[in-house]
Amino acid sequence: MKLNRKLRMGMVGGGRGAFIGAVHRMAANLDGQIELVAGCFSSDPKKSRLSGQDFYLDLARVYASYEDMAAAEAALPADQRIDFVSIVTRNNTHFAVAKTFLEAGIHVICDKPLCLTVKEARALKKVVEKTGQVFALTHNYTGYPMVKEARDWITSGKLGKILKIVVEYPQGYAVTAFEEKGDGAISNWRMDPSTSGISNCMGDIGTHAHNLAHYITGLEIEEICAELSTFIPGRPLDDDGNCLIRFEGGAKGILFASQISNGDENNLNIRVYGTKGGLEWHQENPNELTFKCADAPPVVHRRGNSYLGAAAQGATRTPFAHPEGFIEAFANVYAAAATAIADAVAGRKAPKKGYDFPTIDDGIAGMLFIETVVKSSNKGARWTKFPKV
Amino acid sequence: MKLNRKLRMGMVGGGRGAFIGAVHRMAANLDGQIELVAGCFSSDPKKSRLSGQDFYLDLARVYASYEDMAAAEAALPADQRIDFVSIVTRNNTHFAVAKTFLEAGIHVICDKPLCLTVKEARALKKVVEKTGQVFALTHNYTGYPMVKEARDWITSGKLGKILKIVVEYPQGYAVTAFEEKGDGAISNWRMDPSTSGISNCMGDIGTHAHNLAHYITGLEIEEICAELSTFIPGRPLDDDGNCLIRFEGGAKGILFASQISNGDENNLNIRVYGTKGGLEWHQENPNELTFKCADAPPVVHRRGNSYLGAAAQGATRTPFAHPEGFIEAFANVYAAAATAIADAVAGRKAPKKGYDFPTIDDGIAGMLFIETVVKSSNKGARWTKFPKV
Amino acid sequence: MKLNRKLRMGMVGGGRGAFIGAVHRMAANLDGQIELVAGCFSSDPKKSRLSGQDFYLDLARVYASYEDMAAAEAALPADQRIDFVSIVTRNNTHFAVAKTFLEAGIHVICDKPLCLTVKEARALKKVVEKTGQVFALTHNYTGYPMVKEARDWITSGKLGKILKIVVEYPQGYAVTAFEEKGDGAISNWRMDPSTSGISNCMGDIGTHAHNLAHYITGLEIEEICAELSTFIPGRPLDDDGNCLIRFEGGAKGILFASQISNGDENNLNIRVYGTKGGLEWHQENPNELTFKCADAPPVVHRRGNSYLGAAAQGATRTPFAHPEGFIEAFANVYAAAATAIADAVAGRKAPKKGYDFPTIDDGIAGMLFIETVVKSSNKGARWTKFPKV
Amino acid sequence: MKLNRKLRMGMVGGGRGAFIGAVHRMAANLDGQIELVAGCFSSDPKKSRLSGQDFYLDLARVYASYEDMAAAEAALPADQRIDFVSIVTRNNTHFAVAKTFLEAGIHVICDKPLCLTVKEARALKKVVEKTGQVFALTHNYTGYPMVKEARDWITSGKLGKILKIVVEYPQGYAVTAFEEKGDGAISNWRMDPSTSGISNCMGDIGTHAHNLAHYITGLEIEEICAELSTFIPGRPLDDDGNCLIRFEGGAKGILFASQISNGDENNLNIRVYGTKGGLEWHQENPNELTFKCADAPPVVHRRGNSYLGAAAQGATRTPFAHPEGFIEAFANVYAAAATAIADAVAGRKAPKKGYDFPTIDDGIAGMLFIETVVKSSNKGARWTKFPKV
Repeated sequence: MKLNRKLRMGMVGGGRGAFIGAVHRMAANLDGQIELVAGCFSSDPKKSRLSGQDFYLDLARVYASYEDMAAAEAALPADQRIDFVSIVTRNNTHFAVAKTFLEAGIHVICDKPLCLTVKEARALKKVVEKTGQVFALTHNYTGYPMVKEARDWITSGKLGKILKIVVEYPQGYAVTAFEEKGDGAISNWRMDPSTSGISNCMGDIGTHAHNLAHYITGLEIEEICAELSTFIPGRPLDDDGNCLIRFEGGAKGILFASQISNGDENNLNIRVYGTKGGLEWHQENPNELTFKCADAPPVVHRRGNSYLGAAAQGATRTPFAHPEGFIEAFANVYAAAATAIADAVAGRKAPKKGYDFPTIDDGIAGMLFIETVVKSSNKGARWTKFPKV
Repeated sequence: MKLNRKLRMGMVGGGRGAFIGAVHRMAANLDGQIELVAGCFSSDPKKSRLSGQDFYLDLARVYASYEDMAAAEAALPADQRIDFVSIVTRNNTHFAVAKTFLEAGIHVICDKPLCLTVKEARALKKVVEKTGQVFALTHNYTGYPMVKEARDWITSGKLGKILKIVVEYPQGYAVTAFEEKGDGAISNWRMDPSTSGISNCMGDIGTHAHNLAHYITGLEIEEICAELSTFIPGRPLDDDGNCLIRFEGGAKGILFASQISNGDENNLNIRVYGTKGGLEWHQENPNELTFKCADAPPVVHRRGNSYLGAAAQGATRTPFAHPEGFIEAFANVYAAAATAIADAVAGRKAPKKGYDFPTIDDGIAGMLFIETVVKSSNKGARWTKFPKV
Repeated sequence: MKLNRKLRMGMVGGGRGAFIGAVHRMAANLDGQIELVAGCFSSDPKKSRLSGQDFYLDLARVYASYEDMAAAEAALPADQRIDFVSIVTRNNTHFAVAKTFLEAGIHVICDKPLCLTVKEARALKKVVEKTGQVFALTHNYTGYPMVKEARDWITSGKLGKILKIVVEYPQGYAVTAFEEKGDGAISNWRMDPSTSGISNCMGDIGTHAHNLAHYITGLEIEEICAELSTFIPGRPLDDDGNCLIRFEGGAKGILFASQISNGDENNLNIRVYGTKGGLEWHQENPNELTFKCADAPPVVHRRGNSYLGAAAQGATRTPFAHPEGFIEAFANVYAAAATAIADAVAGRKAPKKGYDFPTIDDGIAGMLFIETVVKSSNKGARWTKFPKV
Repeated sequence: MKLNRKLRMGMVGGGRGAFIGAVHRMAANLDGQIELVAGCFSSDPKKSRLSGQDFYLDLARVYASYEDMAAAEAALPADQRIDFVSIVTRNNTHFAVAKTFLEAGIHVICDKPLCLTVKEARALKKVVEKTGQVFALTHNYTGYPMVKEARDWITSGKLGKILKIVVEYPQGYAVTAFEEKGDGAISNWRMDPSTSGISNCMGDIGTHAHNLAHYITGLEIEEICAELSTFIPGRPLDDDGNCLIRFEGGAKGILFASQISNGDENNLNIRVYGTKGGLEWHQENPNELTFKCADAPPVVHRRGNSYLGAAAQGATRTPFAHPEGFIEAFANVYAAAATAIADAVAGRKAPKKGYDFPTIDDGIAGMLFIETVVKSSNKGARWTKFPKV
């Protein structure tokens, strides 16, 4: 349920030129339920100020450091201070920023991956538990209505027992440096272990594939046999990875992610096969979800129709065939988190069935995924246990 | 260029439950450049108030009538009053509401179709010219980046001389009443000539098809040979229409629109064929635009790529293959209109090349289209001249 | 039912370099039920002989004229002479060749369009009736399994009452001459009225669209309002045409065909909308047929599956997803005609439900279509009655 | 080059009801270059006779055993005896039948997989070499024109250095037994190691995926890390398998095949990514081949166009967008083999560039693939060397 006012949002990171910060703001803006009122948009105070001007903020609430921001906002009267902060900085700062705001009594929506290590992730979970603040992680692809529909199909048994999962996330943008530069120059901070962690490709997009498979099927990985590759020689981190997967309960699978799949754009896809049927969903065509089974024609379910389940219908804003996209899916994560935050602000209990947004546990699972994949690959593609979250 | 504050928006219509009003608000919200501060959301004052609460408005600025609203807002100090109003009521009220706000010195963004008749449309143009206010019409499909790319291809001569245009807009939602009710009950106000005008299907969606063809090709219709049909007997207005078209300069074409094309959702498509090549765009898959020509393989251009022209790139918010949809396209109309309004508010001149949003002339053309189609159909599908805008 | 030997086929036309003759031969070869044993492959006796060598024929049965061939073959003993002749010459000779063979007691499979005029067509029907020979016309697109499935859907009422039909056949190959030659040079015999008849585009491919719509829906046209165009100035015949259609029983429709739709290849498509559902089939993707209706997800039926009807299953040669194409569809016309011919040869009665191949009546309907379209267009797109077959 | 007569074909296997035998006959029939004149269509002499009648054969040349057939045909005069035999029996008999005919001086076209073991395969190669007969293996998917185009792109360097290959072959037909029968009953001989060999799924369709990747890229596998699964408990052989692949030269890849991918039909697909571009081909849509690369729009190449290379154009029978399918691709293998056989019969030398059909070496590679996959899987998915062919 809502409050009788918009939620007040702060932001850390996301200054001029940043891609994901802009997406977070559009996602927050879309439904008119959230207003941005404060921020520390850059570690460079001048850039932070200019960004604050871009967003028409009171410059008194544009801060030079996130520590200042957390302290100052926490000190404001309850009817002024931010309800939550969006963290859209690089991976290596997520832990410290999130911890600071949580401990200041401010709810957090944090970009993924959660942080740099499993250790950090588990430590952050303790902070979340101790402070009791809402913590949402923007694994945004789970925000698509047809992804929610897919999950409901599996929950309801429409596919029968799950036998096989194929999830893939090929991109090609990072192949060009290979030809153009030749020297393996690190094109961005994602290739720098100190900001990005122990994996580039698997950390950046492999975690989305893992999270998507888990969200839809409810199954967690049991063991991984992985091979990471760095096709551009000078790169310190992987730009491609292929995994054989054993899931809980006996399903087998394939997961691969790549940034050198030349000509692919953002080609996240999933196929799930069960004893009673299969499903197929393509992120680049997100408004469709196909059900197929042997001896019956494929059925193409389309967003916005009354034949869909409650979750898909609840996550939709426009009628059928008025296409919704990436921002709308992202906004669904924000909307679900906003509901939880509003409940917390109003002192209401969470509903029994909980909220539908990725949590700190999804963040821990993402870190476990990265570490397990890297461990398996380092051993030359040996089956490696995926620890319990 | 922007102001150093958000633009202040009012809204007439669009209370609880209204589809298009919600879309206008999301389009206005998306970029964080506009805030809704006032409105008259329903002709029922109580419903208007409740809607105002939904949007967290100061209830002093939630009005019982649009006349009150125009007067009261115009009387507010310049740093408080709305910069523009969004009109999202039924067709039959657009004229009076728009006239009222324009004459009160308030810019207007108006839902389509413009009004009920050509006569109203031409009268409204005079008001626009006299008051000098910005007037934008939300023919939203022109807001899609790949539609802008298509227009640029034709402007630049990439297709050569245009020979043929096929534009279609089949929907199927209005067929069900046929079977379920049998009595031709009017399912909604669109079937009522007093609120909708002399055409239902051609007015509601045929105008979109016409506007899209005109926007992309720059060609206006010269003559129409049309047959409108009412497949559900008791309906007072058409639910389907097919047209042969002769365009200026010799191109021929087909335009059809339908609400009884069973199973089609919102299937607006356009194909343009010229001496040097052809193009194809499908609204349900809006992030792609195909160029094709004899003796060369089809080339599928995709939104968000650096190989696209400035207009398409300027109308995009996310990288390639992070799908954008209907709301984003709608928001592009708002963004362009907002730029014009900000310029007007700041006393800046319009840029030489103008702004990229549909204007009062597009609205007149839409009314001419409706009247010409109906006239041709009433004569049993005779070629009927399309008057000059 | 079959004979205890292959059927013996002759061919008129289709010598070296001819496209459609080769298709007929492959269609005849495919199932191993027919052998080519005689022919007059060209009006040039030398070319005819060389072609006969290509096909490994006994040169005693490669003839210098079709008249010679008919006479000589008819004079052969029953266990040697051809059972039927395939006529794959230009349109202007179909009548005389067919008449000659029919009157010689030889069955005929003839390429479409049937002939040059309605008058010829009706005269040929009399010959067919008088001689009692089998006459099949290769409107090959009706040979596709999923086209048969579509027909069965409508026959069985799956679509309810038919409201609207959209059938289109855009090609683009004839646009290139426009740019390259400028002089409107006639690229081939199809643009020559003396060989092709009164229409090029509508005769060549418009008749396919008409035949397909008729085959699938069982509806014949009642009135046509047509505009033919010649976009390349010097051409004596149309290269494009658009029609509004009124079908028997109240359905409305659009039919268009074009050879200047730049970049389109062989893009024959049909959509049929009824009160209970709609269907969509695309010739370039012939193994799929979609059923769609309001409030239910589209269902994509695929060739080769056991959920299809008997006609579709009976017209298929390979399991699902082992794609079948143009030649296989063509071969289905041959197979059905071969069954009729075998029955005739064996003196068996035709089955009650008849055979599933296009007949002389389809040929007459095609001629009526061409003449009605041309008549309507010549009057400036006036509604013109489609005479009874 | 051709002979001045049709080639004479015999067949072993492929009697009434057999799927692949019928495909071989249609492939042989299609171009009118080959005639079936003898056969041993079943190990049951009566069934063999009935099948011979179906094909209108001289029953003197319908044999009770393949040994009889080889002996009798070899004893016929040169102008009567078969030029080659098609072997379309189960895997376990291929070796003996092929050896028998080769040693009788009769050329062989053999269905895949080649035989049961690497040992058999190598032994058969020796027979081929010793006898000097033509031996072709029907890895039919390499017969598609767009597959040949893909190979040419890579040969010509259009994709740059190959980095990654993803090839997959999911089918779903074998999942149904799971639910329906529950007992894991072996549905057909493919699940019986004595007729099928040590792998079902990987032998039947995994070998196609392997062969396709090799044909297109020219790269052979260096190491495999595989996991085979049997999802239906009682089955003695695998019904699914996933492999990580290391190719010669450093490319990495994924290969998977499945018969329990519920709802998939015959979904063989390949994606190849190189430093300069990527390609994508889908067997179920075989007339298209997409080239894509970063920073340029995807280009969809379509069969039958003059912009394609000589191999693709030479393997096509109909103009663009007159779809060709599975049988035509199969017929391309026959046509290439027939050319080689005709050359051999005529005593002509093979052309320098050789012929374009799969050979005994492809058969050995297939056996190596099966054995390596099984070996790796048996070790729990360890990297296993792929021996040299």
